[in-house]
Amino acid sequence: MENGRKWKFQGNEGLTTASSISIRGVLNMLMDNLNQDDPRVVIPLGHGDPSAFPSFRTPSVAEDGVVRALRSGQFNCYSSTVGILPARRAVAEYLSRDLPYKLSPDDIFMTTGCTQAIEVVLTVLAQPGANILLPRPGYPFYDARASHSGLEVRYFDLLPEKGWEVDLKAVEDIADENTVAMVIINPGNPCGNVFSYSHLKQVAETARKVGIMVIADEVYGHQVFGSTPFTPMGLFGSIVPVLTVGSISKRWIVPGWRLGWLVTNDPEGIFKETGIVESIKGYLNISSDPPTFIQAGVPHILSRTDDEFFSRIICVLREAADICDAKLKEIPCINCRNKPEGSMFVMAKLDLSLLDGIKNDIDFCLRLAKEESVIVLPGVAVGLKDWLRITFAVEPTSLEDGLSRVKAFCKRHAKH
Amino acid sequence: MENGRKWKFQGNEGLTTASSISIRGVLNMLMDNLNQDDPRVVIPLGHGDPSAFPSFRTPSVAEDGVVRALRSGQFNCYSSTVGILPARRAVAEYLSRDLPYKLSPDDIFMTTGCTQAIEVVLTVLAQPGANILLPRPGYPFYDARASHSGLEVRYFDLLPEKGWEVDLKAVEDIADENTVAMVIINPGNPCGNVFSYSHLKQVAETARKVGIMVIADEVYGHQVFGSTPFTPMGLFGSIVPVLTVGSISKRWIVPGWRLGWLVTNDPEGIFKETGIVESIKGYLNISSDPPTFIQAGVPHILSRTDDEFFSRIICVLREAADICDAKLKEIPCINCRNKPEGSMFVMAKLDLSLLDGIKNDIDFCLRLAKEESVIVLPGVAVGLKDWLRITFAVEPTSLEDGLSRVKAFCKRHAKH
Repeated sequence: MENGRKWKFQGNEGLTTASSISIRGVLNMLMDNLNQDDPRVVIPLGHGDPSAFPSFRTPSVAEDGVVRALRSGQFNCYSSTVGILPARRAVAEYLSRDLPYKLSPDDIFMTTGCTQAIEVVLTVLAQPGANILLPRPGYPFYDARASHSGLEVRYFDLLPEKGWEVDLKAVEDIADENTVAMVIINPGNPCGNVFSYSHLKQVAETARKVGIMVIADEVYGHQVFGSTPFTPMGLFGSIVPVLTVGSISKRWIVPGWRLGWLVTNDPEGIFKETGIVESIKGYLNISSDPPTFIQAGVPHILSRTDDEFFSRIICVLREAADICDAKLKEIPCINCRNKPEGSMFVMAKLDLSLLDGIKNDIDFCLRLAKEESVIVLPGVAVGLKDWLRITFAVEPTSLEDGLSRVKAFCKRHAKH
Repeated sequence: MENGRKWKFQGNEGLTTASSISIRGVLNMLMDNLNQDDPRVVIPLGHGDPSAFPSFRTPSVAEDGVVRALRSGQFNCYSSTVGILPARRAVAEYLSRDLPYKLSPDDIFMTTGCTQAIEVVLTVLAQPGANILLPRPGYPFYDARASHSGLEVRYFDLLPEKGWEVDLKAVEDIADENTVAMVIINPGNPCGNVFSYSHLKQVAETARKVGIMVIADEVYGHQVFGSTPFTPMGLFGSIVPVLTVGSISKRWIVPGWRLGWLVTNDPEGIFKETGIVESIKGYLNISSDPPTFIQAGVPHILSRTDDEFFSRIICVLREAADICDAKLKEIPCINCRNKPEGSMFVMAKLDLSLLDGIKNDIDFCLRLAKEESVIVLPGVAVGLKDWLRITFAVEPTSLEDGLSRVKAFCKRHAKH
C-alpha cells in the first residue's frame, strides 16, 4: 500500500453519504457546471443567504452590539454550556412577546446557528429504534443529521393543493410507538408558505394525540409578507411540548454570524420530567458554543434594532415575491400554484412534457447553470422530484434578469 | 403520566453520562460547593481560561482584525464548509513557518474552536469496532466524544518519572488490528510538559510501526517557557500522517472566540488515499462553521500580532510556574516532581497518608472549595486518581493567595 505501509485507518463512507444529501452539495455541483466563458454575472437563485446584496445589508446597530462586546474585553472567555445569561434572557424576552406565557432564560439554549440547534435536537432524540416525522418537501439537513445519528426518518406530505398545509392524516398513519417527534418549518422552507393559527393548532392536537413532541423550525420567524401572520408554535405549548429552533441569521440577514437558539416551549414542564432538558445540557456540554462576544451582543441586537429595518426588508421580499410570481406565470413549463407569503423561497413544478430532451429537475438545473449562468435548486434536493426551489431574496434587478434567463432557457428547450 | 398523557419521547442517558466526565461538569460541582458566606474572592486554579485576568488581555490588534471584517459587511454570509480561503491560507502560512514542507490551504479546515476539530476527528474515525489510544492523564473531552461516537478508548500512560513522556512500549502493547489513531497533547494538558524533538520522532516511528495516525493536539502550541522548545508533530508527517488540531484560543487568550483548525500534516497524501479527507469534508458539510467574520479576521490576527505580546505572556506564565513550583514545595502532602515547561497546568500528587480524614482527590477539592474558596481540579477528572491539576495561568497575586490558602488547608488537615 501507499508509503510502503498498511495503514489501519480509513474514511467513513457514511459521512460522505450524509453530506451528499445536503443543499450545499447540490449547489456546489451546479456551480461546478457553470460555463466559465459566459461573460454574464451568475444569478444565484438557489441559496438561502441574501446577505451579499446591498438591499439586504444588516443594520449597523446589530454590528454595534457585537463590536461593543468584543471591545469590552469582557467576553474573550469561554461561555457556559447553555449560553451566557444575558443572551438567554434577551432571547427569552424577545420570544415571549408573542406568547401567552413568559419564557425563562432556562428555557433558552444558545447555539452555533440554527444548524447546531437542529443537531442537538436530533442527537438527543436518537435512541435505538426511534423514528421522527419530517415534512416533504423539507430541509434536507434534518435528513442528513437524522441519518448520521441513526434516527429513522418517515415523511408526511405538505399539500400544495392546500397551500402546503401538513397532511395531518398521514402524520397519524405513519406514527407508531417508536415515533418521538414531528418537524414543521414555519414560515416554510422550501415552500414559502405560512401556517395559519388554526392549522398549527391542529398540528398541536394531532401531535398530542399520537404522543409526540413538535420541533418547530422558526428560523424564518416574522419573515412574512402575505395575508397570513406569523404564529409561533410555542403558542400551543400547553397542548403539546414544543422545541423551537431559531436564530438571528434570517431576520437580521447575518447567517455567517452563526448565532441561534433552541427553546423549550413547555409550560407544563414535560421536557424536564422526561429527561429531555438534561440530555440537551449533556450534549451541549460536549459541543462547541457560539462565540461568547457574539452572545454578549444579542441583547443589543434584539432590543435596539429599528422596526424600520424589518419593514424595509419585508417590503423588499414582498416586491421580490411579486416579481417572481409574475415572471414565472410567463413560463409555460413552470407552474407555481401558491404565491409565497413567507421565508425566501417558492416551490414551482416543472412540466417536463413541454420540454424537449430534459430528463428531470437535476438535468434542468445543470443545463440552466451551464447555458444561462443561473443557479436554481432542483426539487429533488428538498424531496420533490421535478420541482424547483427558487430563492427570490436577491436584488430585484438580479431577480428579473435571472428569471428572464430562465424564461429564455425554457423557450429554447420547448417542444414544438 | 404528566399532563394526563403518555409521551413517547424521553431523554438520552448516554448524553448525560458522556457529559459527566467533562472538566466543566466537575468544576461546576466544585463551584456548587463554595461557601457563599466566605467574604474572600474565589481563586480559580481549575480552569484553562485566564482571559478575565488583566495580565492576559488579548492585544487590540487581534480585536481589530475581527472588527474590521465585521464592519466591512462582506462577511455576513455563510462560510464554505471547509472555511473561507483567506483564513485557511493564513493558517497554512502560520503553521508552515515551523515545518520543512509547505502546507496548502487545502490542508486546513476551519473549526469552531479546537473543540469542534476534535469532534470532527473522532467522528470520522468512529467506525464499528475501531479503537483509539489516548494518553493518561489526558483531556477528558476526547473520552466523552469517543464514547458518544461509539469509538473504543484504550489508554497508554504518560510517565511522570520520565517527564511525562509517552510509554511507547504500552502503545505497541495495546494497539491491535482495530486501532486507528493515537492522541498526543503537546504542550501537555494536564501535565505542563513539552515533548522533545527526539521523543516526538519516536512517537512517529511507533505509530508508523503499528500502522496508525497521530492526532496532535497543539492547542497550547508555542506556549512554552522552559528549556524544551516547542516541536510541532507535523515535522514528522513523512514518517506518519498527522492530524493536528489547534486554535487561537490559548496563544491569543481568546477561548471564547471559538476559532480553531484541523490540519492534515501529510506530505505523502495518505489521508487522501484512505478517504480521511473526504470524510472530514463530509462531516463538516453537516456541521456548523465558525462565524465567517471571525474567520475573515484570522489573516490579520496571525500576521499582525506583535512578538512582544507573545513574549510578555510567556514571561507571565514562566513567573507563574515559578511561583507555583516554589509554593507547592512548601506543602508536604502535595508532590510536584516535574516543573511545568508549557501550557498552563501542572500535575501534583496528593499524599493522602499525611492528611487526616480526606478520602481522595475529589474529597480534597470539594473541601478546599468550601473551606478556602479555591478551585482546583481533582486528578481523577483527567485520569489520575489522587492527583491534582493546578492552573497557574492566573494573575500572579491571585496565584500566591490561592496557593497560600491551599497550604493553610493542608496544614489544618495534616495528621499529627
